[in-house]
Amino acid sequence: MTMDDTALSALRELLGARVSDSQAERALHAGTEAHHAPGLPDAVVWPESTDEVAAIVRLCARHGLAIVPFGAGSSLEGNASAPQGGVCLDMTRMGRVLRVSPEDLDCTVQAGVTREALNHHLRDSGLFFPVDPGANATLGGMAATRASGTTTVRYGSMREAVLSLTVVTPEGEILRTAGRARKSAAGYDLTRLFLGSEGTLGVITEVSLRLFGRPEQIRSAVCRFPDPDAACRTAIEAIQLGLPLARVEYLDAGCIRAVNAFSQRAEAETDTLFLEFHGAPAALEEQIALFGEIAEGHGGTGFRWAEREEERNALWRARHSAYNATVNQRAGAKGWATDVCVPVSALPDCILHAKGLLADVPVPASIMGHVGDGNFHVVFSVDTNSEAEMQAVKAFNDALVAKALSVEGTCTGEHGVGLGKRKYMEAEHGPALALMRRLKTALDPAGLMNPGKIFP
Amino acid sequence: MTMDDTALSALRELLGARVSDSQAERALHAGTEAHHAPGLPDAVVWPESTDEVAAIVRLCARHGLAIVPFGAGSSLEGNASAPQGGVCLDMTRMGRVLRVSPEDLDCTVQAGVTREALNHHLRDSGLFFPVDPGANATLGGMAATRASGTTTVRYGSMREAVLSLTVVTPEGEILRTAGRARKSAAGYDLTRLFLGSEGTLGVITEVSLRLFGRPEQIRSAVCRFPDPDAACRTAIEAIQLGLPLARVEYLDAGCIRAVNAFSQRAEAETDTLFLEFHGAPAALEEQIALFGEIAEGHGGTGFRWAEREEERNALWRARHSAYNATVNQRAGAKGWATDVCVPVSALPDCILHAKGLLADVPVPASIMGHVGDGNFHVVFSVDTNSEAEMQAVKAFNDALVAKALSVEGTCTGEHGVGLGKRKYMEAEHGPALALMRRLKTALDPAGLMNPGKIFP
Repeated sequence: MTMDDTALSALRELLGARVSDSQAERALHAGTEAHHAPGLPDAVVWPESTDEVAAIVRLCARHGLAIVPFGAGSSLEGNASAPQGGVCLDMTRMGRVLRVSPEDLDCTVQAGVTREALNHHLRDSGLFFPVDPGANATLGGMAATRASGTTTVRYGSMREAVLSLTVVTPEGEILRTAGRARKSAAGYDLTRLFLGSEGTLGVITEVSLRLFGRPEQIRSAVCRFPDPDAACRTAIEAIQLGLPLARVEYLDAGCIRAVNAFSQRAEAETDTLFLEFHGAPAALEEQIALFGEIAEGHGGTGFRWAEREEERNALWRARHSAYNATVNQRAGAKGWATDVCVPVSALPDCILHAKGLLADVPVPASIMGHVGDGNFHVVFSVDTNSEAEMQAVKAFNDALVAKALSVEGTCTGEHGVGLGKRKYMEAEHGPALALMRRLKTALDPAGLMNPGKIFP
Repeated sequence: MTMDDTALSALRELLGARVSDSQAERALHAGTEAHHAPGLPDAVVWPESTDEVAAIVRLCARHGLAIVPFGAGSSLEGNASAPQGGVCLDMTRMGRVLRVSPEDLDCTVQAGVTREALNHHLRDSGLFFPVDPGANATLGGMAATRASGTTTVRYGSMREAVLSLTVVTPEGEILRTAGRARKSAAGYDLTRLFLGSEGTLGVITEVSLRLFGRPEQIRSAVCRFPDPDAACRTAIEAIQLGLPLARVEYLDAGCIRAVNAFSQRAEAETDTLFLEFHGAPAALEEQIALFGEIAEGHGGTGFRWAEREEERNALWRARHSAYNATVNQRAGAKGWATDVCVPVSALPDCILHAKGLLADVPVPASIMGHVGDGNFHVVFSVDTNSEAEMQAVKAFNDALVAKALSVEGTCTGEHGVGLGKRKYMEAEHGPALALMRRLKTALDPAGLMNPGKIFP
């Protein structure tokens, strides 16, 4: 599938200067945020509309070129790399908020709008978009990987947040997956078929999203625990009692150490929960009092509260820097994040299991997790040039995924499959994987849409 | 696709006495809850396990027989009728709750378990399953039609409630669509592909569901309004302000009149909201106070509260009897329920539009709606033998659906497409309908799974 001059000329005719085959741009679009080997596209294009995306897809189909959508480049599994070359569609110039309907609590954005740009746009509306994967990803990319994050325990993931999508099919046809009704029983749920399909069934060009009213009050906190089990059980018990926690994030001692070093902070280096509560005043007090009791019952101490926005932001910067703080412990190292998600009752055992396995891995690592959802990451700062390190982390992830699957969990709660998790698909899905392949073949018989991803 | 003796003998060999081709059983399984013409299967079978369903499906595939899953028979669009004959799979003997995990707030049930049976099973656990379509439907049927109901405004629909499904494919293969993790990004969302597919892609045999802790307190209420607009705007404003209403149901004056006559009640015959609030004590007081202010601002009066369980149940019986109360206004009449769902901002205008259209329909009707979701039903008590009445209701629904689609709504919020809404699929989905057909053809090339449904 390499590109010839005819195809390049045709792209230039279509898009003018918004085409590049320079080595620099190709390398920037090789999907190398994490540890995966770069996969360089033959060319990069910057469409500005759904119609342009459709024209590009038709052109690529005629020339037999792979089509690889690319958002902010923040995905962690090589989801947007181009191991088979072809044309990378950089979506960042599709950056317009097309509509906000405060009365309906929804909006429509082009796929290249980032979640922070959307929230900036909404700043005077009293509304916000809650899904927060940490990185300032594009909403198209978040839809494509069915992303979630720190607020999913309360507000859901992209699975719940997306009302409908505009999609360009592998034939270059434009379609909308649904209307704007909050619910519908009108046939197959195409919206959720494309959510999480990672560009392998079509290109997402517009996203209609649910919005939420800003909570009347927000209170954030950190709380220390004697061990991971106590921290996890506190979170689980709170969820079971129906406490509507807005965020409940676990960081292990090593992670706090990395964050302290990275950000010149002085958090106590122990198992810690980062928390957030949203609500009306009395409800908030009620939640906080109940949570305090639960935490105390599990040995939680040293609550520190933040109410003013700047204080809360400072507190959450620590959590959000955890990935970079861990990866940047060593110069030149790359990140490798595991992403298992299990039923919450199995979470404490699963984290302890991970800690046990870590004893055999000579690579710096942190553990951080969306414990309310049963999802946690072991993040490594890995030297990709060291065969021994790469093998050790690989073996660790294999063992951790096997553990997660043994308790009916998944190898990936939110990062997607991309290149890195293809090898677990058979074990996780069994005969259902063959069904996924049939869907792929039915919609993309030529196999040009983000080839090499998801399927082993 | 009619049945020969060989096929019937083979079914009897497989299932013994759990096969019937009697006229009585065939008529009972003709899907005639509502106004649709009965579609009699050639035979009815009662499987007791997923393996038996798989064996039945393989047998039907060999003999070229249609396969029609049947739950409680409460669907309203002929979703489970057998217009092309074939074999009806009555799922009600698959009635076991297989697992409840209180720590994970989830469970797995066989497809024939009804929602009331599940909640009865959970009665001492402190947990409940919230999705409530009114009828005591089976959970398999609710999954197949992507059902929702009175509590969806707070707890979501089957789309959000289902964690995973066990499905028998058209080839008779058994697969599970997902594990038990709360979220996953591991490939295509097969769970949501089968949710709402109405048996056209396979037979759902087991359902894993999210459960919720019973709220600490529950308070129900009715409140009267001067007109539909005031009632709707009260609900919408409450939603916009983030009030976590557990239920907010609109009944028009005609509907209250029907309920009063049906149940010997004496509610004021005016536009009315039925409400429910769930929460911890202080949060509940806060919600109720705020709701009271909003309602007052729109002319709401005559609040009547119910806190004790029997009082609440009595109050909700009025709402839940609304369909039957309306249909049974005339002896021998059948129900015909419209089901449009629109963005909530468009709801008041849409209801007013419906009221205007009703002036031309000489058939008794009530309006009832899940107004927090933008979904409402106009329920007719129609004489199916009167060509004039049938034509008038048909024209009414055509006009109402056209109105809903003009504001980016859907022809069906929760009842599914079945036979009755096929004709709207093209207008609602445009090119997306062709994509749905490709999925159907890819998974069921022989077209034996619940034929004649969803697709025009």
